[in-house]
This record gives sequence, C-alpha cells and structure tokens, in this order.
Amino acid sequence: MNITRHETGSRMSQIVTYGGFVFLAGQVAVNAPSASTREQTLNTLERIDTLLETAGSSRDRILSAIIWLSDISTFQEMNAVWDTWVPAGAAPVRATVEAKLAEPQYSVEIGIIAALAA
Amino acid sequence: MNITRHETGSRMSQIVTYGGFVFLAGQVAVNAPSASTREQTLNTLERIDTLLETAGSSRDRILSAIIWLSDISTFQEMNAVWDTWVPAGAAPVRATVEAKLAEPQYSVEIGIIAALAA
Amino acid sequence: MNITRHETGSRMSQIVTYGGFVFLAGQVAVNAPSASTREQTLNTLERIDTLLETAGSSRDRILSAIIWLSDISTFQEMNAVWDTWVPAGAAPVRATVEAKLAEPQYSVEIGIIAALAA
Repeated sequence: MNITRHETGSRMSQIVTYGGFVFLAGQVAVNAPSASTREQTLNTLERIDTLLETAGSSRDRILSAIIWLSDISTFQEMNAVWDTWVPAGAAPVRATVEAKLAEPQYSVEIGIIAALAA
Repeated sequence: MNITRHETGSRMSQIVTYGGFVFLAGQVAVNAPSASTREQTLNTLERIDTLLETAGSSRDRILSAIIWLSDISTFQEMNAVWDTWVPAGAAPVRATVEAKLAEPQYSVEIGIIAALAA
Repeated sequence: MNITRHETGSRMSQIVTYGGFVFLAGQVAVNAPSASTREQTLNTLERIDTLLETAGSSRDRILSAIIWLSDISTFQEMNAVWDTWVPAGAAPVRATVEAKLAEPQYSVEIGIIAALAA
C-alpha cells in the first residue's frame, strides 16, 4: 500500500491517501475569513468537495467528520448548511465540539476521513 | 471495499464501516442527560457496546478512542468507569481533552474507531 | 487482519496496529513537564519517533496528526519545532485546536495515525 500526498508543504499536506482511505487536513474557510459561520461552513464544504475530487473520492464516500466550532452556540447555524450538503443516505459519522482555532478569523474547522472511489 | 452505514439520518450515521474498520459517531449519554459524569460515562459505554455489536465488532477490538470532557476536572471520575470497562489486554489508544459539547446536558462524548470481527 | 498492541495498560495502549495502520495514544512531554511549549513539542516528537519505531513505522509515514494546545497563542512556537521535524515531502494532514489537557503540566498533546512500513 502506497502513501500519496497532495498540496504538501513543510507543515502539512492537504490530502494524504493510503490503503483505500483519504485523510484531509482540518479545513477552514480560506475564501471567507471573518464571515458568518453559515458562510464559512459553505466555503469549507466547497473546499472539501474540491479536495475529495482531487483525492479520487467524493462527499458520498466520507466515513468520518470532526467539526470544531469556536463558539458552540453556532451549532444550528453550521448544521443548517451541513444537513443540506450531506447526500441522502450517505451521512458519515460525526462529532462536533467547541475549540478555539489557530486563527481567530475562522469559526469552523472540519477534519475528514473518506474512502477512495471503489 | 464497500461502505456500510447504520442509523443514518440527514446529519450523520451512528456507524460507518469500511475496509475492516468501524467508525462510530461521537457518543453521549442519551439515556442519562444531566446525570453525573460517572453515570454518563456508564451510559455512553453501554451505547458503544450496542453499536459495536450492530457493526460486527466489540469492545475488545477498539483501536482508538477520543474522549471529550466538558470539564476536565471529571477526568478521574470518567477514568474510574472507563478502566473497569476496558477488557484486560485489549485497551485502545486514547486521547482525552476538555471541550464544550454541543448540548449542555452532556458532560462526556466518546469517539471510537474499531476493527470488525476477524 | 490482526490487532497488535504495545505498552498496554488497563486504561490505554500507547500503540495499536491493524490493517497496515498504526494508531498512537495522544502523546505529551512526559520527560519535560511544565517546560516551554517549544521544549514540550521537542520531547513529544522524540517520544513519537520512538513509538513509531517500535510499531514498525517512522515519521515519514505519518498520515494524520491532531495537535491540541492548551493555549493556542503557542501555535507558532509549536510550529517552529514541528516544521523542522517533518521530513521534506512527507508531511501528514494536520489539525490544531486549543483544548485544556488532562494534566496541567502539559501544554501540547499530539495524536498520530501512521502507516506501517511497506
């Protein structure tokens, strides 16, 4: 089994694949900093779509998501976007907790483990 | 390798299996909200036993656990339950940190990655 | 696929391997408690090197890292050590968030998923 990496810098890769699995770096709304959590969630999920496509996967093959919110009171605001984005019948497992993120302009960060396309 | 999901809603599945692995959604004490952390941990671990059985796994095949406590001062209280529950010689890797959870009636949430039965 | 565990106690194992994957328990600076985050990160990464070697892996085969900092203002201090430690071209995916850790003498904890040697 080979390890494949994409968008690899000195700190992290955005994508690592191995053994049929895809790991994504924690994604934030790089195109919507300081926007509402709703807009940041939309932008983050768009970014995840793009990375999954690059990896050879897609949103209907996500296995697990961890969602960190800088303010847990935005839980429903995030969910309103998330619930629409998740394909019917293909929801991953998920855990959501509050945590201060590395950069204050971001209010939501999402970590993904997915399956490569069959 | 096929993806199998159980208890799948529009937001998440409680179980996803793939490639010999079992992922569980972050579990909380749905039958013991607002109870002590000891009671919540007991209830959460019972729920995990049930989900692992549904998935085709069991507590002696857990690979990794992440435990989020809403108040890290309950660390020993949670551990007292956890240490008894873990089968001798089959403890998974584990990380425990403090984080505010999505619903204030819960004080402990546990995320599990396990192996399917051999 | 067999599960192999190392340094297994009643609470956790430090290493669990399965299906070509290596899971490490959340690592802290057991040899540098209460030291600076820079020193704690150095000590934690040394510990990870040792565990990966025991597991049959190495730092150039890390797939995913989650880093918890007890104070996110130490993000750059941690990164200065991390960026030097990561092998060129082999950076894993990564997510870093703030979280209070189980023991106050530790300011950084790192969770690792890696690939066994080919």
